[in-house]
Amino acid sequence: MIQPVTIHYPNGTSYRPQQPEKPANYNSSLIRHGGRGMTLEQEINESNQYYLAHEIAVIHKKPTPVQIVKVDYPKRSAAVIREAYFRRPSTTDYNGIYRGRYIDFDAKETKETTRFPLDNFHEHQVEHMRSCLKQGGICFGLIKFVTLDQLYLLKASDLIHYWDQQGDPHGRKSIPLAAFQQQAIPVAYRLNPTIAYLDAVDQLI
Amino acid sequence: MIQPVTIHYPNGTSYRPQQPEKPANYNSSLIRHGGRGMTLEQEINESNQYYLAHEIAVIHKKPTPVQIVKVDYPKRSAAVIREAYFRRPSTTDYNGIYRGRYIDFDAKETKETTRFPLDNFHEHQVEHMRSCLKQGGICFGLIKFVTLDQLYLLKASDLIHYWDQQGDPHGRKSIPLAAFQQQAIPVAYRLNPTIAYLDAVDQLI
Repeated sequence: MIQPVTIHYPNGTSYRPQQPEKPANYNSSLIRHGGRGMTLEQEINESNQYYLAHEIAVIHKKPTPVQIVKVDYPKRSAAVIREAYFRRPSTTDYNGIYRGRYIDFDAKETKETTRFPLDNFHEHQVEHMRSCLKQGGICFGLIKFVTLDQLYLLKASDLIHYWDQQGDPHGRKSIPLAAFQQQAIPVAYRLNPTIAYLDAVDQLI
Repeated sequence: MIQPVTIHYPNGTSYRPQQPEKPANYNSSLIRHGGRGMTLEQEINESNQYYLAHEIAVIHKKPTPVQIVKVDYPKRSAAVIREAYFRRPSTTDYNGIYRGRYIDFDAKETKETTRFPLDNFHEHQVEHMRSCLKQGGICFGLIKFVTLDQLYLLKASDLIHYWDQQGDPHGRKSIPLAAFQQQAIPVAYRLNPTIAYLDAVDQLI
């Protein structure tokens, strides 16, 4: 039986996780399985909450960028956005600080079992990583082969290498799984944090 | 007469500023005035674009967090968000990397002329700065007295000092302008970048 833990910040306010509460019929026997039916984004957010609460790192997902066109302000209730559009993000989704270093990464899932298609990344995300690397940041991709239940940390410099060779005469449009097995750092599933990806980052610093 | 400059990234794609294009009747004689009728947010975004294009720093504003409830997917056109609500941000608005250091700050404007009311900041923003400071980040507030047309960089440690003394028996709910003049670093308005706030950051590193 796993007891819920209330973490108190130094200022005395309760720690409220961003994730919705577990439903009443939540089956704790599921909790130790890698994945637990969560998306990679949920796994990272949970891990980031753990890292924040334990003062290990401060890393957040950026909100989804939205172009707001029309907002209603009803009396006695919250403003309602009535027309808005999704905008293309100009950066990666995650950044923050760990061991005094700037951390910047993006997370991608693929159902492929032998290769990671490079079109999962967008040009502006790769360019953003290139810019951050030049400034001395720790940049990488967290890439999950969901069918294989395998998660890898791929250094941005390796990702950029594969990205740039797409333009070559015999350039590949994907990174083979074998390359992950040789070049990338495997990330294990655990209980706390869900994915200990900063252990993999330690190998980069 | 100021000519528009097209900046080309190494990959050959054009640099597209996030700001809307200047209107056709845009008066270049206005351009050298501090403020130029821009909000502090616009001034910072313009400066960040300059710093990015010149490979000085990679600092972005985070998107406004929105809870999306209902999305329409019309045929042959972009998805439209039809119901969404503003969420309280869990961090400051700006972060990134400069000279290998993690940078994290928030920007606030006040029309007051003698003091900066502390309720411009929210508890979670101050707590976020406290967390980032513990990790070795460079954290601060950019605070503009719009009526005085004065802009200051206030170190997060000073901000936190004033924040925490609010609970004291004779605690103040604001920071006097004199404290900015003594403790904070003034930020000058220029042409490029609009506000050279990283010059002030250099004094913190």
